[in-house]
Amino acid sequence: MNIDKIRQDIRGLSDGKIFLNNAGSSLMPIPVVDSMIDYLQQEEQFGGYEIANRNAELLEQFYEETAKLINCKSSNIAFATSATEAYAMALSSITFKEGDVIITTVDDYISNQITFISLKKKLNVKIIRMKNLPDNELDLEDLENLIKQYHPKLIAVTHIPTNSGLIQNVEAVGKICKKYDILYLVDACQSVGQMVVDVEKISCDFLTATGRKFMRGPRGTGFLYVSDKVLEQNYAPLLLDMRGAHWSAFDDYELFKTAKRFEHWELSYASLLGFTEALKYANNIGMHAIEHYNKGLSERLRENLKNSGFQIWDQGNNLSSIITFCSPDGDLENIQKVLKESNVFFSVTYKNSALIDFTNKNINGIVRLSPHYFNTLEEVEKVSNILRIIL
Amino acid sequence: MNIDKIRQDIRGLSDGKIFLNNAGSSLMPIPVVDSMIDYLQQEEQFGGYEIANRNAELLEQFYEETAKLINCKSSNIAFATSATEAYAMALSSITFKEGDVIITTVDDYISNQITFISLKKKLNVKIIRMKNLPDNELDLEDLENLIKQYHPKLIAVTHIPTNSGLIQNVEAVGKICKKYDILYLVDACQSVGQMVVDVEKISCDFLTATGRKFMRGPRGTGFLYVSDKVLEQNYAPLLLDMRGAHWSAFDDYELFKTAKRFEHWELSYASLLGFTEALKYANNIGMHAIEHYNKGLSERLRENLKNSGFQIWDQGNNLSSIITFCSPDGDLENIQKVLKESNVFFSVTYKNSALIDFTNKNINGIVRLSPHYFNTLEEVEKVSNILRIIL
Repeated sequence: MNIDKIRQDIRGLSDGKIFLNNAGSSLMPIPVVDSMIDYLQQEEQFGGYEIANRNAELLEQFYEETAKLINCKSSNIAFATSATEAYAMALSSITFKEGDVIITTVDDYISNQITFISLKKKLNVKIIRMKNLPDNELDLEDLENLIKQYHPKLIAVTHIPTNSGLIQNVEAVGKICKKYDILYLVDACQSVGQMVVDVEKISCDFLTATGRKFMRGPRGTGFLYVSDKVLEQNYAPLLLDMRGAHWSAFDDYELFKTAKRFEHWELSYASLLGFTEALKYANNIGMHAIEHYNKGLSERLRENLKNSGFQIWDQGNNLSSIITFCSPDGDLENIQKVLKESNVFFSVTYKNSALIDFTNKNINGIVRLSPHYFNTLEEVEKVSNILRIIL
Repeated sequence: MNIDKIRQDIRGLSDGKIFLNNAGSSLMPIPVVDSMIDYLQQEEQFGGYEIANRNAELLEQFYEETAKLINCKSSNIAFATSATEAYAMALSSITFKEGDVIITTVDDYISNQITFISLKKKLNVKIIRMKNLPDNELDLEDLENLIKQYHPKLIAVTHIPTNSGLIQNVEAVGKICKKYDILYLVDACQSVGQMVVDVEKISCDFLTATGRKFMRGPRGTGFLYVSDKVLEQNYAPLLLDMRGAHWSAFDDYELFKTAKRFEHWELSYASLLGFTEALKYANNIGMHAIEHYNKGLSERLRENLKNSGFQIWDQGNNLSSIITFCSPDGDLENIQKVLKESNVFFSVTYKNSALIDFTNKNINGIVRLSPHYFNTLEEVEKVSNILRIIL
């Protein structure tokens, strides 16, 4: 991995900032931005339809690059404008009835939790959260017991929760879902682009991701993976549009075969193209190399902060490129002030975004640093030193 | 209306093309494209979250400009990535049960028809289409009879069907919906930007529109209008995310007050900003002036084609800037060939996109010309002359 070259590909680093908010919205590489600007200028000249026709082959690469990234076929991929849109499209293809059960985790993403609560309120779907073990890993025995007791219609797990360093063991959950033949939905919003995500190994039916975080794509992009099994069983969004089906008779349609049926017909092709460039960029470097590098970088940063006396809130045996922490007295203000003054980009999460997790941890908020492969060990040491001085 | 200035604002006209596909995807004015490129370049420098924060006030103008355009408050407006996404969000807020009835028209947009059929297939919702009168206007007496007979949960009308010149009398339908207190959804995809659309006068609960057509905004944009009545009754998308509610307890949330609850949290702010510039552009010219100009232009073009012997397929008393036609023998090929050779932009629709309407008309397809306020009478005469020679 040629870090110098990678850093030269980022115009946003020219002012010396240390960008550690890749779990928020990352810095796009030059080819991502340039491809979007070029595409918009083509549209400006000839209109959106003409340009989509002329670039039809190029735009198809989105599906191929995504498939390459997560180890599936391009026919399993749908473009989405966000991970939550992808999530909603997946959920809407499942016909929930009163009393149906969804099993999820206590660490799942806030938007997913709100979506589940809406299903509970409107359709009387029952939401059950599997337990964590004392080491914060998912209690898989509890999961099997819950399955036997409730016969859930869906199991939904967030691969890497947004507000803790945890990496959930989605492969182990996948094996259990397969054993009991239960639909399995994985939110990979924070893992795709950060580490290897392999849908074969996870053995999921649906997987959702966003473009703007560790993928380094533009805002307003994401994707949905849909398994062959689910496609063959004719799952389709409840409110499908002409992207999804051929209007075959006044009161009938025929579903199209691929996962594109989970898309809306209209979308921003400039954004799709920018996302494609981001996917290519990651594929060219290789996700194994990126994961390896990120692991080293985030371990170092976490270790440094711990050694300086900060309270680290990442729990679990397998930790990600998300480092969550606060001062020993719980203070966040001073950390924020110092980071801002030093041109370090970060984010802060408060309890209302991680209600269950932060209630269990008995904290009101955390500062989050999320390094990525374009960051250097020097940057990590520099930030560690800046923060060390506070305590 | 200063047509010269308006044409100078379009880089896409510099090659002499005659652009008559505004019902497809129009040509964006310079401020639309430039604002998007500028915003993407800011994101490239500092990341998407930082730039959204810095531009928060500017980005709010989207809601104000949309509200100004259709005569409502900014709190009634949600951004959408397409008209069909807006349509789906609106529909998903209505809890349909087996046997519920939706009344729509035979001329409604293909995507809406497919969505309705999906609701029929999956939830056993009944879809009924009100009749047209012999002059192709909606049979409002039939509508009232259907309401008395079926007590529909929703009435859904496409303001301007995509494939005929028709403008539906959505105001008259609105009065009937109000009289019987029935939810009313209007698809204004082809009317917004082309003519005055006033939600007070229409008296609808939901109205959906796209950015890329007569609004001249970017692809991947649209909006949803939600009435105060519906907002106060706590309608919200079934699969709502953290954009829509505050996570107030482990198993509960509080809905946010405004129509933003119909949005997804993540979106392309570059696209939203481009769309805002397009809305400003239309508001600055004024929709009354645009409607008046478009009326004159489209009448002239329709009249010219009719006088040359073409078969015009626009039916109804009140016609729009969409002109649909073919040769007397039904041929479309020759028309397309000549238009392409003359650098005229147009579109063609085949039966599978307008199944009911084209079956009733007994045709396989039409050529569609859709002039807009940046087109000139000279262009209309030129295209008329080019086509006259074919026959």
